[in-house]
Amino acid sequence: MKALLVIFDGLGDRPVKQLGYKTPLQVAEKPNLDKLSVTGIKGIMDTIAPGVRPGSAPAHLAIFGYDPYKYYTGRGIFEALGMGLDIREGDVVFRFNFATVDEEMRVVDRRAGRIKRYTEDLAEALNTIEIPGVELIFKEAVEHRGVLVLRGEGLSWKVSDVDPGKTGFKVKMCKPLDGSLEALRTAEIVNKVVAESYRVLKDHWVNKDRISRGLPPANIILPRGASISTKVKGFKERYKLRAYCVAGGTLYKGVAKFVGMEVLNVPGATGTYGTDYDAKVHAAVRALKDGDFVYLHFKPTDLAGEDGDFRRKVDIIQRIDKALEPILSLEDTLVVITADHSTPCSIKTHSADPVPIMICGEEVRRDGVKGFDEISAARGGLGRIRGLHLMPILLDLMNLTEKYGA
Amino acid sequence: MKALLVIFDGLGDRPVKQLGYKTPLQVAEKPNLDKLSVTGIKGIMDTIAPGVRPGSAPAHLAIFGYDPYKYYTGRGIFEALGMGLDIREGDVVFRFNFATVDEEMRVVDRRAGRIKRYTEDLAEALNTIEIPGVELIFKEAVEHRGVLVLRGEGLSWKVSDVDPGKTGFKVKMCKPLDGSLEALRTAEIVNKVVAESYRVLKDHWVNKDRISRGLPPANIILPRGASISTKVKGFKERYKLRAYCVAGGTLYKGVAKFVGMEVLNVPGATGTYGTDYDAKVHAAVRALKDGDFVYLHFKPTDLAGEDGDFRRKVDIIQRIDKALEPILSLEDTLVVITADHSTPCSIKTHSADPVPIMICGEEVRRDGVKGFDEISAARGGLGRIRGLHLMPILLDLMNLTEKYGA
Repeated sequence: MKALLVIFDGLGDRPVKQLGYKTPLQVAEKPNLDKLSVTGIKGIMDTIAPGVRPGSAPAHLAIFGYDPYKYYTGRGIFEALGMGLDIREGDVVFRFNFATVDEEMRVVDRRAGRIKRYTEDLAEALNTIEIPGVELIFKEAVEHRGVLVLRGEGLSWKVSDVDPGKTGFKVKMCKPLDGSLEALRTAEIVNKVVAESYRVLKDHWVNKDRISRGLPPANIILPRGASISTKVKGFKERYKLRAYCVAGGTLYKGVAKFVGMEVLNVPGATGTYGTDYDAKVHAAVRALKDGDFVYLHFKPTDLAGEDGDFRRKVDIIQRIDKALEPILSLEDTLVVITADHSTPCSIKTHSADPVPIMICGEEVRRDGVKGFDEISAARGGLGRIRGLHLMPILLDLMNLTEKYGA
Repeated sequence: MKALLVIFDGLGDRPVKQLGYKTPLQVAEKPNLDKLSVTGIKGIMDTIAPGVRPGSAPAHLAIFGYDPYKYYTGRGIFEALGMGLDIREGDVVFRFNFATVDEEMRVVDRRAGRIKRYTEDLAEALNTIEIPGVELIFKEAVEHRGVLVLRGEGLSWKVSDVDPGKTGFKVKMCKPLDGSLEALRTAEIVNKVVAESYRVLKDHWVNKDRISRGLPPANIILPRGASISTKVKGFKERYKLRAYCVAGGTLYKGVAKFVGMEVLNVPGATGTYGTDYDAKVHAAVRALKDGDFVYLHFKPTDLAGEDGDFRRKVDIIQRIDKALEPILSLEDTLVVITADHSTPCSIKTHSADPVPIMICGEEVRRDGVKGFDEISAARGGLGRIRGLHLMPILLDLMNLTEKYGA
């Protein structure tokens, strides 16, 4: 038996007054999910724990069966992995912004005017920086963002942020967050890196050009969110499952790679409102021919929640439902429909409201609950579960678990 | 957003044959709770854990978000706090009975004929007792009850009870319950205190008077239930909530004070059948103007359960429902209706049957379950939660939680 795990990012919601105190998922027309629901068992899920507002990366780790309190140190390594960087065990990874500082190291613009072009040239210059005893990798990401990898012996992720978080403040010194020599050394390296980044970037041709056009120069990098790469047993080794990921966003690809999934490159899968839903569903269905487990991620439900646009959220759910039609004819495959967290339109950010979940398949108990939303799912046969429970439950339904005791 | 937490003490019940195998909560007419239920999400809650019969103090600690297995050592410190004593970190507190012993230290009456008057004079005499190296505070409570505080360095709460629990037995020696020097020393102090109490009380004018009237003299104190005061972060520091307590019973006031609530003195709030329900509700509503969180406690549902008087329990629920009318017009306020434990009329004591819970407010998912009782609540959108989950869930609905990870 195979399994398809479909995550609607930020799907869960709270009642919307303009929708008659229903949630977007409650009012959306979703004939394909309705059909699926007949063969399924429903429930609600705290991806981390009741009352804990999940970040996307720890929520996904939990859903994949990896305790985030053990494996999550920060978002950086997942971003780096998702960007395709070759991250090794022990690497310390920061996210950074290209930013603008004045000569006194005061932050003038935390995003260097949301610089969009030529950051690969800036990264190339940064990659000339040499600091004895440590290997440095700089890689530009979307717009003003990037990641910095420190590689070598005796490093720690227990160091503070350099980014002051506000303009008008001086660049902060990176400080050790525990008493270890490793943290002290890492903080010193980061401070050198930041100083060197200013030296390398301030007269770079990209910035001369920006200044000549009245744009803020990207003359420094501000690392934050140190995280460390730990080695984990991936899906193959841990669950004996060959797993694939179909996602647009870097972070989701990164978490998938972290747990040993093969990340498929699907043209049109962007992780934005403009993503090609059909292309992704087809890619997932194709991947199921070869793979045992496919993780299919849709970002726009979360984006609509963060925009507070409940009508758009309804539309997106309906659009995804339509795209999901091919999965109705999958054979010998468990289909899971759920979310990593709720993103209520009323608060425009993640919340801890449990997400609805439905597990469908021939072998699954039919709980008689028709349709799929936050309210009806709570009356389903699955009850209220945790994110970390999902993989054991799936493995058992796939008959891949061993008996405990005799 | 603010929150009002209403605890009906011992509300949960088991089916009562004379009520057609329904619970008192099921048969009670409660139009105000019914109205509230429309805007709410329901569930059932194990205040401690499934199958664990909760004492009132640990149940309340859990509901307030404080793990009782970490913070609960005994009832004494909560009684002492609720009586208004200035309890400090490290104080060891005992509950005691004024009792009657014969000259051989054999207990004749464990409650000294349920002595009701002049115990403050007896306590005054006890407070003349001096034992080197430790400060002693004796304070009378309701009827034959009192509390004893030991204050000083090197004390332990790991000591046994002096009260033999039955008449006809000799007063027991207090013994250390672990191998520590502190427990040994504390046990020695307690034994001295008990001996001294007999010396001070036996010829006290109150007792001479009692003997002359044929009443058993309160000629000794029998300490039991040693507990230690630990320092905790209160609601203000831990949750950033200014919290108030409206309760009649000493124990509930004490737990509230322990977690940093301000305890309001409401005339007519007695913690007995005769309590003034309306005065309490009005005080709670008033407190919400200034405070962020109000805990409102009603004792009589538990009293009726302990009396096995199911008809009275129905009446009390109806009476409280009536009194709760003003909370229907609260704005921007979460209202929680629940209990600390079940007190089934059939067994006249606490049970581990989960309690019904309902969380109501504009931002809360509407689960379509009408009304509020043990059975319908179990079909609600909240599922089955633990007492320790309640505060995280409330804080999240109040949008006071931080995201875990990114």
